[in-house]
Amino acid sequence: MYSIQQLQNIIIEAIDARKYPDEPAELYEPMQYMMNLGGKRLRPALLLMGCDAFGGDIYQAINPAIAIEVFHNFTLMHDDIMDNAPLRRGKTTVHEKWNSSVGILSGDAMLVEGYKLMMQVNENVLRPVLEIFNDTAIAVCEGQQIDMNFEQQPDVKINAYINMIRLKTAVVLGGALKIGALIAGARKQDADLIYAFGEDLGIAFQLQDDILDVYGDPEKFGKQVGGDIISNKKTYLLIKALETANKEQLKELNYWLQLEDFDALKKVSAVRNLFDQLEIREKSEQEMNWYAQKALQSLKDLPLDEVRKNALFEFADMLLVREN
Amino acid sequence: MYSIQQLQNIIIEAIDARKYPDEPAELYEPMQYMMNLGGKRLRPALLLMGCDAFGGDIYQAINPAIAIEVFHNFTLMHDDIMDNAPLRRGKTTVHEKWNSSVGILSGDAMLVEGYKLMMQVNENVLRPVLEIFNDTAIAVCEGQQIDMNFEQQPDVKINAYINMIRLKTAVVLGGALKIGALIAGARKQDADLIYAFGEDLGIAFQLQDDILDVYGDPEKFGKQVGGDIISNKKTYLLIKALETANKEQLKELNYWLQLEDFDALKKVSAVRNLFDQLEIREKSEQEMNWYAQKALQSLKDLPLDEVRKNALFEFADMLLVREN
Repeated sequence: MYSIQQLQNIIIEAIDARKYPDEPAELYEPMQYMMNLGGKRLRPALLLMGCDAFGGDIYQAINPAIAIEVFHNFTLMHDDIMDNAPLRRGKTTVHEKWNSSVGILSGDAMLVEGYKLMMQVNENVLRPVLEIFNDTAIAVCEGQQIDMNFEQQPDVKINAYINMIRLKTAVVLGGALKIGALIAGARKQDADLIYAFGEDLGIAFQLQDDILDVYGDPEKFGKQVGGDIISNKKTYLLIKALETANKEQLKELNYWLQLEDFDALKKVSAVRNLFDQLEIREKSEQEMNWYAQKALQSLKDLPLDEVRKNALFEFADMLLVREN
Repeated sequence: MYSIQQLQNIIIEAIDARKYPDEPAELYEPMQYMMNLGGKRLRPALLLMGCDAFGGDIYQAINPAIAIEVFHNFTLMHDDIMDNAPLRRGKTTVHEKWNSSVGILSGDAMLVEGYKLMMQVNENVLRPVLEIFNDTAIAVCEGQQIDMNFEQQPDVKINAYINMIRLKTAVVLGGALKIGALIAGARKQDADLIYAFGEDLGIAFQLQDDILDVYGDPEKFGKQVGGDIISNKKTYLLIKALETANKEQLKELNYWLQLEDFDALKKVSAVRNLFDQLEIREKSEQEMNWYAQKALQSLKDLPLDEVRKNALFEFADMLLVREN
């Protein structure tokens, strides 16, 4: 059994060792650039963890694990163009460093590269592994589109929001674990259980991210605290507040949402104050804990020795108590 | 054995019958829109032809054939964004009708959809079929990037140009035929021969397109005659002219290439006049014929009954005597 740290180190080394072709440089340099920006490599580590939990040889899962990270970075490259984002992990985004065409095309090639790597599995699991990969990829596209639609939509409902983060974020965690499990030879029902663990954990993780954006420790939280409030991002917190506010509170909330010229600190403070009145933090934490418990229940139901599940329990702990 | 016309009708019907999911509409409507813009469906028809030539059941190749067309339309959707093109087959392009983000994301989903469809083959050919699909997809990305690079590159060489059109256009024709052949159970060496036929035919086809842009019958040629000359597009003709012109001719050619304000008809006429002096049409037709002959030789070498190859010979004839 490997620890999370060991698996992360193995995957980081494997990713660092990869070299893309030289030509055409505008196609492959952005891939290399993107893959070398770093990050915690949680998704590929999860894939290896899924394999390890079922007693598989994690070195048979290395290329599929890299595939998940390549796929994740393809989505980031294209999302950055759509969001017009100047920075990614503190570095210039691909479309800014090169141009949008390079970002589109290099991203396309990364998606294909993801398939090439994902296919490096034994014959007997090739089809099921690729089916999960296909489903994951389509779900992420759907989630991204729904997220963009939310920007124009005044009446987003909690259920629609949960479904969006499930598609955009959580399915990749579930998919990574399930692929790892299948490579190790897990039975279908067990692979489904580890998938459910990953998906529910992913939803809890995104809800925590929403909470930390407002209530996180500025020193530990990587991003600007209150960033979602400043940009009117439809997070779980804002949707819940809009749903539960009384007439007067709704009026004040809408006042801040519609204001075009504002002092950022004042807006963050006023909206947070409204959230406090409505006990939004507690409600959000309740929802997050519900998904976390659901995730842990799937893990408990998994018919594996406790020692085999340890890394997964630790991973859930690590993911959900982080303050950054 | 099916005629080309029959195969085209079968694939047109199959594509027309496909319905994409309703939601999110911004993801799936552009797919449906793009797939319903029409076109001759040559690539999927080729895939079916490859299957039919080797005695396969073409109905087992229908979904992979649709996959090739979905893939082709994904590349068009993204290319149109990169080229900032307002029209595609006379209709508004996706990024104009919706926006660039929709064009990027819907295109991404189409690539995934292509994989889903391509996987609908028997277990014993799943891996080889997907390997060809991967190689084709990466080649098309490389070709598109090299083509974009050519715009900024003053000294493009003939070999580099041929390689670009091979990657961007020809490999899809070869790949479609080879996938069809493998589905029919063709031996590897035969599948390679039919691939070579398709790739060389594709190069000849693109060279013909370059020639028709300058020398085509305006009534039959679908696009504006001289369009490549007006936009300084580095075609086989222009590259050959730059390579073979004497000092004086080169000076005149560069004069027209650098002129920013010009009368389009005058420029087309002047450059065509230079091409005539340099016998560019004849040289281009020689090159085209060389690839066409090479393609036909591969077809002749294929150890199949003549009747099995008929549709493929007819296809080559149809493709290379077209005036539109």
